[in-house]
Amino acid sequence: MADYIEGKRPVIEALRTHVPVKRILMADNIKRDGLVTDILRKAKNLDVPVVNVSRKKLDEISSLESNQGVIAEARPFEYVNVGAILKAAERCAERNEGRALVVVLDHITDAGNLGAIARSAESVGASGLIIPNKRSARVTAATYKSSAGAIAHISVAQVANISSSLERLKKAGFWVAAATEHAQGYIWDANLKGKIALVLGNEGEGVSDLVLSNCDFGVKLPQVGEISSLNVAQASTACMYEWLRQNRTVAEGLSSTAEGRRA
Amino acid sequence: MADYIEGKRPVIEALRTHVPVKRILMADNIKRDGLVTDILRKAKNLDVPVVNVSRKKLDEISSLESNQGVIAEARPFEYVNVGAILKAAERCAERNEGRALVVVLDHITDAGNLGAIARSAESVGASGLIIPNKRSARVTAATYKSSAGAIAHISVAQVANISSSLERLKKAGFWVAAATEHAQGYIWDANLKGKIALVLGNEGEGVSDLVLSNCDFGVKLPQVGEISSLNVAQASTACMYEWLRQNRTVAEGLSSTAEGRRA
Repeated sequence: MADYIEGKRPVIEALRTHVPVKRILMADNIKRDGLVTDILRKAKNLDVPVVNVSRKKLDEISSLESNQGVIAEARPFEYVNVGAILKAAERCAERNEGRALVVVLDHITDAGNLGAIARSAESVGASGLIIPNKRSARVTAATYKSSAGAIAHISVAQVANISSSLERLKKAGFWVAAATEHAQGYIWDANLKGKIALVLGNEGEGVSDLVLSNCDFGVKLPQVGEISSLNVAQASTACMYEWLRQNRTVAEGLSSTAEGRRA
Repeated sequence: MADYIEGKRPVIEALRTHVPVKRILMADNIKRDGLVTDILRKAKNLDVPVVNVSRKKLDEISSLESNQGVIAEARPFEYVNVGAILKAAERCAERNEGRALVVVLDHITDAGNLGAIARSAESVGASGLIIPNKRSARVTAATYKSSAGAIAHISVAQVANISSSLERLKKAGFWVAAATEHAQGYIWDANLKGKIALVLGNEGEGVSDLVLSNCDFGVKLPQVGEISSLNVAQASTACMYEWLRQNRTVAEGLSSTAEGRRA
């Protein structure tokens, strides 16, 4: 997470999408326009302190050309380790006849894609995301926005080496499926029942050869149109819902819980 | 489509994503920076004429505060009528054992969502999109960008009345399925085989009651996470791929054609 969010609209957006804001620094000579009033109101509702500082001080902190007199200081995103995701997956599997999903991103670089994938992953009940700690989008205020806040509800581990993580997942009983257009068969014919690690590749090059050699099998979605334009976030949504279709007790467990609560 | 695209980067983006640009108006005193050079090169490659005009003339056309000395004049998007989409669907059905998909958007207002839905629809081989001519996102330069150009490869009809269009689809042998969280069952259990019109609702309110009353059945995707955050574009992708899964001859028809071509 970027520690500082700069400018009126970005700060409003951060508060709206539940970025964990520690405090807001505001120029002591700021003009109280509608946006500033909105920031003050949202900060009050969320119990976020607003500290008045000199514009000189703000400009020292600022890394952008124009902070507009407002900078929010965010708490760093709390990544978990792979062990924590494996534990969460184990708990999911225990409740759901051995079914769980972990999503592994092989160098996704676009912050919007990371957020959209997190949103879908949270929606299908994935136990966590594993992302590399280099040459990869990481969780920032933009991820809160592009995930519509879902990033706060899913565990993310940052790892030095994707292939080692895949080995760990395999040892924990996962089958590792790579979403790749070079796959032999459609995802519908793959057996996704049980504990699955779904590997999604970089926007430009897809899953790297090295990572691919560590996957158990490949899966693909047909693209019937004239142009093959599906992006990684859209493909991930379709793939994750196919996992959920094949492991629907994970969804039905939820329904029965919800009904139980209602009764 | 907005007739005018203003500013250096928007014009570059328009040329890159194949917005049908008729000509580019450029201030005769413009400074030849890297962006201007890029515009001139792209325009040359695409055979788009660049016309030098006075900055005063540009400012008269401009509806934004800053056109930066560059305005692209785009050809209006060519909408089709519902009849053309029905014909395309009929051709698809003839080739694919009676299977075809038409996507109906009940007042989607976000340009990004319209583009993303068009991109998925093109990808699964849908025969067209039907959108309302009021209170709805329409096809603009933004749609080219958010659809990654796919909007140029799918037919879009703008209609005065969604319900009448659904009646027409039904008369043409379509089953009309509404994607709604109020559906009784999951989409996986619905029979989506054959000619299906998939209705997707507005971002805030979903499919309206009136339109819903004109649908044959509802379908929904389970949302297993803590928050129900899946947006309409993501949901549409998962729903459309479920249609394709149940109608996979549409995908396999493509494979066999492709193989035929290769042989």
